[in-house]
Amino acid sequence: MVMQTDPIDDILAGKQLAIARMISRAERNDAGFREQLAALYAFTGKAHIVGVTGSPGSGKSSLVRALAQAARSQTAKINHSKDTHQKIGIVAIDPSSPFSGGAIMGDRIRMNDIANDEGVFIRSMATRGALGGLARAALDAVDVLDAAGYDLIFIETVGVGQDEVDIARAAHSVIVVSAPGMGDDVQTIKAGILEIADIHVVSKCDRPDANKTINELKSMLLLAMPDHSKWQPPVMPTSAQSGDGIHALLGQIDAHRKWLNETGEMTNRQTQIAESRILKRAEEMLRSRFTLNRNGFAATLIEKVAKRQMDPYAAAIKFFDEGEV
Amino acid sequence: MVMQTDPIDDILAGKQLAIARMISRAERNDAGFREQLAALYAFTGKAHIVGVTGSPGSGKSSLVRALAQAARSQTAKINHSKDTHQKIGIVAIDPSSPFSGGAIMGDRIRMNDIANDEGVFIRSMATRGALGGLARAALDAVDVLDAAGYDLIFIETVGVGQDEVDIARAAHSVIVVSAPGMGDDVQTIKAGILEIADIHVVSKCDRPDANKTINELKSMLLLAMPDHSKWQPPVMPTSAQSGDGIHALLGQIDAHRKWLNETGEMTNRQTQIAESRILKRAEEMLRSRFTLNRNGFAATLIEKVAKRQMDPYAAAIKFFDEGEV
Repeated sequence: MVMQTDPIDDILAGKQLAIARMISRAERNDAGFREQLAALYAFTGKAHIVGVTGSPGSGKSSLVRALAQAARSQTAKINHSKDTHQKIGIVAIDPSSPFSGGAIMGDRIRMNDIANDEGVFIRSMATRGALGGLARAALDAVDVLDAAGYDLIFIETVGVGQDEVDIARAAHSVIVVSAPGMGDDVQTIKAGILEIADIHVVSKCDRPDANKTINELKSMLLLAMPDHSKWQPPVMPTSAQSGDGIHALLGQIDAHRKWLNETGEMTNRQTQIAESRILKRAEEMLRSRFTLNRNGFAATLIEKVAKRQMDPYAAAIKFFDEGEV
Repeated sequence: MVMQTDPIDDILAGKQLAIARMISRAERNDAGFREQLAALYAFTGKAHIVGVTGSPGSGKSSLVRALAQAARSQTAKINHSKDTHQKIGIVAIDPSSPFSGGAIMGDRIRMNDIANDEGVFIRSMATRGALGGLARAALDAVDVLDAAGYDLIFIETVGVGQDEVDIARAAHSVIVVSAPGMGDDVQTIKAGILEIADIHVVSKCDRPDANKTINELKSMLLLAMPDHSKWQPPVMPTSAQSGDGIHALLGQIDAHRKWLNETGEMTNRQTQIAESRILKRAEEMLRSRFTLNRNGFAATLIEKVAKRQMDPYAAAIKFFDEGEV
């Protein structure tokens, strides 16, 4: 006989296996477990959530690893007790390969040294599902970690594509990472996300061309952000390799968290996150209801659009009207 | 007194100003012009649509420019008459900067030499809207060009993010571009799109490390595609600079088009495109209805989710039930 324990209780008690299982259920969007995710939601809202985004090769993963290590050692110094360490969660969105059948880990491998620290929970989520729903699943994973008592949760994405930007946006503090000396092509894909940064990080700051990137960012900010009553995004040089700037960056995350709370901006941000969460769920429901009816009443609409007897807009209106959406 | 002409007639007559204006209306999702887009839709279905995607820096834009030039000169050779040239449309999705207030053109600038050819219509669309709807607007632009008599339409996107992949997928032939010797980080973001390729292109094939990339792709294809009754994606080395492989690639696009028609696969693909078009429109309608009700009945849902009195999934269900969605 196997003792059955309640997964909700296990997660609230911080048991990592139960946490990992619930996140897998979120990824599969398993209908039977939505109620459990819903039950967990009531216990969320305690963690500080930090979105980390930037172009490929900007060193996001190394930065997050360094931040997690620094945050762990920092608390250790203050508390002199392992049990009262700040617990760190990391949810990393991985580009994935349909050929290897799994996420290409890349940077993730370098995280092994903190993977053995029980106070750090790391989860990679693959983009291979490709049916959308990734943002929703990633934010559900953050909920699970939040309910499980993780104090500081990093959510790491490549800052390209609407879904990826939406994930980063659904955080309390957003870090945008720029690396010095990257090609124009790579830099431009980053440009669209600069405006969502609460904190700018220039990674690999031990490189000689880092100052150029720092100055470029500062000039852009001067141009774009003249409102001094609002939060002024700082530009933080860091080096994950040497550790330079990592503690200062942790300090800035904390300063931003305090600013959010003191100005009441935290309430606005939570409203904005709630809005995005509902919409992401609704979009996923729309997609799955469409898929369910692909061979039902939607089949006629699809055929008519394919044959140019109806335009896509008219078909979408009919789908809303006729479907139980 | 200004003579009013009908924009639909002008577009069907191939007038570039009318085409450009209608595409701008599609970008703004201007309600008043949806009927005009719908009217144009009946005249679509003649063009062959080629999606071109690949990681940043893979040389997509140069490739598309070279293909457009080659296709133009090829038809010229056959017909010996400018009027019967094949007309080429290019819709390029641009990463954009919120600071510069417009698309960063980058590669696009190098297209100037074909920009003066009246048989080539180039349109850049920016991702800066960031409210979704980009895929929908880009595909509407393709419709406008199709109705206007463009024979071969390229739609070019950075192959990262669901929306971008969806755009590339909504084509009859999908080209995935890989460049030799790019960093791992940049390569991995490409991995998720390799499976959607009908034709693989290795760009910059004059580089000494191109053979390695070609062989890697071929090995992957051998591993993943054992079904010989289906289309076998070829691996085509090209150099936009020297022109090597460009005519051969045009030949492969034509071979794929013929294969689609001869096997009846074109019907399947058009069904799949129609499905995606309806869904993209429906998603956009969902988002705009949610936004419209943000201060109405949706406000209560948002507040409850922000305060952890309701979970996002329950709120999404309520939004569907209560809203006129």
